[in-house]
Amino acid sequence: MAREPLPALADFVWHLDIPTRWGDHDSYGHVNNAVHYSVFETTIMRWLEIEHGLATDAGPVRCFTVENGCQYHAPLKHPTTMRCGLRVGHLGSSSVRYELGVFDGHTAVATGFVVDVFVAADTERPTAIPDNYRRVLSLLVRV
Amino acid sequence: MAREPLPALADFVWHLDIPTRWGDHDSYGHVNNAVHYSVFETTIMRWLEIEHGLATDAGPVRCFTVENGCQYHAPLKHPTTMRCGLRVGHLGSSSVRYELGVFDGHTAVATGFVVDVFVAADTERPTAIPDNYRRVLSLLVRV
Amino acid sequence: MAREPLPALADFVWHLDIPTRWGDHDSYGHVNNAVHYSVFETTIMRWLEIEHGLATDAGPVRCFTVENGCQYHAPLKHPTTMRCGLRVGHLGSSSVRYELGVFDGHTAVATGFVVDVFVAADTERPTAIPDNYRRVLSLLVRV
Amino acid sequence: MAREPLPALADFVWHLDIPTRWGDHDSYGHVNNAVHYSVFETTIMRWLEIEHGLATDAGPVRCFTVENGCQYHAPLKHPTTMRCGLRVGHLGSSSVRYELGVFDGHTAVATGFVVDVFVAADTERPTAIPDNYRRVLSLLVRV
Repeated sequence: MAREPLPALADFVWHLDIPTRWGDHDSYGHVNNAVHYSVFETTIMRWLEIEHGLATDAGPVRCFTVENGCQYHAPLKHPTTMRCGLRVGHLGSSSVRYELGVFDGHTAVATGFVVDVFVAADTERPTAIPDNYRRVLSLLVRV
Repeated sequence: MAREPLPALADFVWHLDIPTRWGDHDSYGHVNNAVHYSVFETTIMRWLEIEHGLATDAGPVRCFTVENGCQYHAPLKHPTTMRCGLRVGHLGSSSVRYELGVFDGHTAVATGFVVDVFVAADTERPTAIPDNYRRVLSLLVRV
Repeated sequence: MAREPLPALADFVWHLDIPTRWGDHDSYGHVNNAVHYSVFETTIMRWLEIEHGLATDAGPVRCFTVENGCQYHAPLKHPTTMRCGLRVGHLGSSSVRYELGVFDGHTAVATGFVVDVFVAADTERPTAIPDNYRRVLSLLVRV
Repeated sequence: MAREPLPALADFVWHLDIPTRWGDHDSYGHVNNAVHYSVFETTIMRWLEIEHGLATDAGPVRCFTVENGCQYHAPLKHPTTMRCGLRVGHLGSSSVRYELGVFDGHTAVATGFVVDVFVAADTERPTAIPDNYRRVLSLLVRV
């Protein structure tokens, strides 16, 4: 498991601050690993829905996650704020690969990815990424 | 805050066993208080949906919680199984009051209630409890 | 269940903004009722820990919730921000009753309470509220 | 993203049944992807703690997750039971790679992995897997 050097916040295009919640801890007194995935999804969906007005649960397409993963570099303790950086690593014809980093201050404590496939809301079959989504997703491509 | 004597499992009509999950803990190493409410809702909905085939999210009515509450008698530590007892305390024309107890073995560690109002799925306005629901809910009335 | 008029944000002493998360929804497409309790606890603990530097999980005392409750006035849909108002309704010798309101913009969508008992960290038996806590809690009493 | 054929339940050594909870859904009416990771951790910890009496949060070592990942093959709808299969794919000197599958009936709906590193409870630095853990983990190696 060769690990790349940890990214900086500037390596991402956008970020969202998400405060930890009292119940986020696991039995070790750390923020539970599953919470990171909730933070990933929340960051992606905030970008699409709040920043760019795309109605991900009411429009003609939906984004289904087909794969995700995370490397944990340091534990997090509540209360803190998880600063989640977001960029697009690959933009395909019907799928997108998001790359994310969770920062505690300026330190990357976790890095991960989410692959979403666009499906038609009615058939739930893969479909081409609509133009309005593609425009918004392109903004997240790190050049 | 005068507390009634703790109930026994036999004081409830039905119960469901729900194993705790790794992430259920809070910063004190106890099952987070909010988990109890998830257990309450899960028990109620399992009774309606799995035991009695009522489609609570697809049919003409929905059950909206308007009030709930819980008293905590002892902390719970993961891993354990939360045994949740269920009965109906009051069955009105358009609302139902569920009474619940969470047991760790034979000891009541929490007791609570949930008041659900039936609403029409289309208007989301209160409506009379349909007959098929009333029949099922009547089975939970402790006589 | 006679309901009091809904409070305004100004009826609380302090508030915290907590963004909803992607996974907060239940099967009805509303923020799950149990999330409100996580928001209540998070607001209380942020006030004690972040605003006032009280180490609730490392010091000589802990705060155990013995009772809580909530009335739901309107459903919430993700993504939004839950603005949670906080005040102290009663400050006893070893317990405190917090009163809370969840606002969506300026509208109260839920109101609730949490009763915490202070216990000694070693024995987990009730103990008098320490002076440094009492000072901080007194700031939350609405006069 | 070449995908391997989906595993059968018999490809795993042990499994745990975990009922979904009312709040597990996301905005699409599917069990939220983050729940799968909670199910992974719960299955692993149940095996160690309940099946084999290892005190993962009180003994001299702790298991820190350094990486995990999941592929989602089909959405899950609450209420159902997530049957989580468990095996060990690699048992190193101080780390273990768990492989997991989530089944809905006999169909694999998700497959994933969790890499845990053993650390000393006092220093939180990596340490050799203790013999009692190694014995238990060896039982999960699929031969």
